[in-house]
Amino acid sequence: MMKYAKGIFIFLAAPAILVAGLLAGGAALADPLPSWNDTEAKSNIISFVEAVTDPASGDYVTSSARVAVFDNDGTLWSEQPLYFQLLYAVDRLREMAAADPSILTTDALKAAAEGDLKTALAGGKKAVLEIITATHSGMTVDAFQTSAGEWLNTARHPTTGRAYSNMIYQPMLELLRYLRDEGFSTYIVSGGGVHFMRAIAEDVYGIPPENVIGSAGNSSYQIIDGVPSIMKDPGIAFIDDKAGKPVAIDSKIGKRPIFVAGNSDGDFEMLEWSTAGDGPRFGMIIHHTDADREWAYDRASHIGRLDRGLDEAASHGWLLVDMAKDWKTVFPGN
Amino acid sequence: MMKYAKGIFIFLAAPAILVAGLLAGGAALADPLPSWNDTEAKSNIISFVEAVTDPASGDYVTSSARVAVFDNDGTLWSEQPLYFQLLYAVDRLREMAAADPSILTTDALKAAAEGDLKTALAGGKKAVLEIITATHSGMTVDAFQTSAGEWLNTARHPTTGRAYSNMIYQPMLELLRYLRDEGFSTYIVSGGGVHFMRAIAEDVYGIPPENVIGSAGNSSYQIIDGVPSIMKDPGIAFIDDKAGKPVAIDSKIGKRPIFVAGNSDGDFEMLEWSTAGDGPRFGMIIHHTDADREWAYDRASHIGRLDRGLDEAASHGWLLVDMAKDWKTVFPGN
Repeated sequence: MMKYAKGIFIFLAAPAILVAGLLAGGAALADPLPSWNDTEAKSNIISFVEAVTDPASGDYVTSSARVAVFDNDGTLWSEQPLYFQLLYAVDRLREMAAADPSILTTDALKAAAEGDLKTALAGGKKAVLEIITATHSGMTVDAFQTSAGEWLNTARHPTTGRAYSNMIYQPMLELLRYLRDEGFSTYIVSGGGVHFMRAIAEDVYGIPPENVIGSAGNSSYQIIDGVPSIMKDPGIAFIDDKAGKPVAIDSKIGKRPIFVAGNSDGDFEMLEWSTAGDGPRFGMIIHHTDADREWAYDRASHIGRLDRGLDEAASHGWLLVDMAKDWKTVFPGN
Repeated sequence: MMKYAKGIFIFLAAPAILVAGLLAGGAALADPLPSWNDTEAKSNIISFVEAVTDPASGDYVTSSARVAVFDNDGTLWSEQPLYFQLLYAVDRLREMAAADPSILTTDALKAAAEGDLKTALAGGKKAVLEIITATHSGMTVDAFQTSAGEWLNTARHPTTGRAYSNMIYQPMLELLRYLRDEGFSTYIVSGGGVHFMRAIAEDVYGIPPENVIGSAGNSSYQIIDGVPSIMKDPGIAFIDDKAGKPVAIDSKIGKRPIFVAGNSDGDFEMLEWSTAGDGPRFGMIIHHTDADREWAYDRASHIGRLDRGLDEAASHGWLLVDMAKDWKTVFPGN
């Protein structure tokens, strides 16, 4: 009987132990960031992650404090020639105006619906707000997210011809996955609209809705034809940019991140606050240096302007990722 | 060699298998809600949880959609004779006024600092806002949370003599733990201040800061003496009550909860919206019926008024928890 029992134990135990051994060996050997070149950027990231996850290290950080925040536009996906959300708004406006031209109540709306973005956006923030209001309010959150998700997955970017949902950065996808595998919580903290990003954030980044923090319009609870609904209303509730980013992180996460990635001066305060905390901290700025594979822009760009961050990265100890030099590939499936 | 290897397998495997067996048996046999009496309330809760977690059930819900939200005042801890946060504010005001009497710039502040709450609160919302502004702004979030945490753990409730952090409901602690053990995410969604609740929510409820949603004052990012800080400023940013609750859940979680617990009409819209979703939903209202062990109040109370919820619970299928009848104990350690 004892012999038989031993046989059962061996039968049950052997595969589990073999699998455990293979997994442990695999994890130690596999490159977690295969789309990153073997430059200092990659080794700095890996050294940091290894230090904060090694219980024997003086820099060890418990998993609950391993909070990593990422800007979206220009950090996780492209943002040229215009923020994708604005391109969505213009497409949506055209579609809406085809059904009901009376919605084009201002010059900016008329120009945008005709595809004349230069004239439409000449009105600055006021014009943008008109276009956003016309296309981002007066519907339920569910209806908006369905519309945004369809567009992101089917509309094509004007210069690359890719679906927008496929203009995400392969090296950053690997970084997100690597951090989660190492016990980090990954969040988006972006100036983009929270409902727009949520439409695909879980599918493309593996970041669930509760980890997406963004700008937001007003919204309200309403019973529509007997159905309890969340409606998107006109007006801005919160702009998640610049000093608004640390405020939003405090409000929604309540912890100071230990890993932070951005690409523009809109991320400066988030980088500054996060990396000023006690213990090990990692700040990273994606520098768009790759005119061949993506775009090259920084101090002079009207989108994703990076000026102060470029001057002060070194003194803060932030990693400047040189896209052309540090990334083996840019987009998935290249 | 083979025999030796087998011996190692047995040595490694036997404890693991025995432990696994004990755990599985234990989980099936143990009562997850020992402080609940064996009434319909308890069996309804357990039936729901078993249905949504059983992959073979038609009501199965994936773990990522198992979102459970809880009001705090009157649902997870007591709220009589006044919301604890207001009692904290008055204590803090007295302490501040002792150091600098010039802060008592209004009649409400003067009365509150003298301990005359009746006069202080006669001014209604305006008076409350004055007391909250004086005690909840002009300091960093870190300093405020340290102060609130100390008070919650050391100050004593006027009628029970308990520390406020110990006036939490034992049956609800068990429910929170049970839901988390079954793959739910548990959130607080309360009219209380987000920073006030975060001061102890993880310690007493096991709910981390990122899962605490509440009302909030204005706040700002500032460099104070060279230190990047989040400051609490005067003014109200968001009131997380009534129709604000579903709006906050959409904004911060982005999923419609499948389990929702409240105790007052301030929770009505959250209950209504959550339980109107597709698939299995569970709504619960704690009815304060226990004048002996806690308090008995509902339609006529100025704190935690429950009127519409009492009328409509049955038609919505919400469980009315009768505290006197359904709870074996109320507070921990009884």
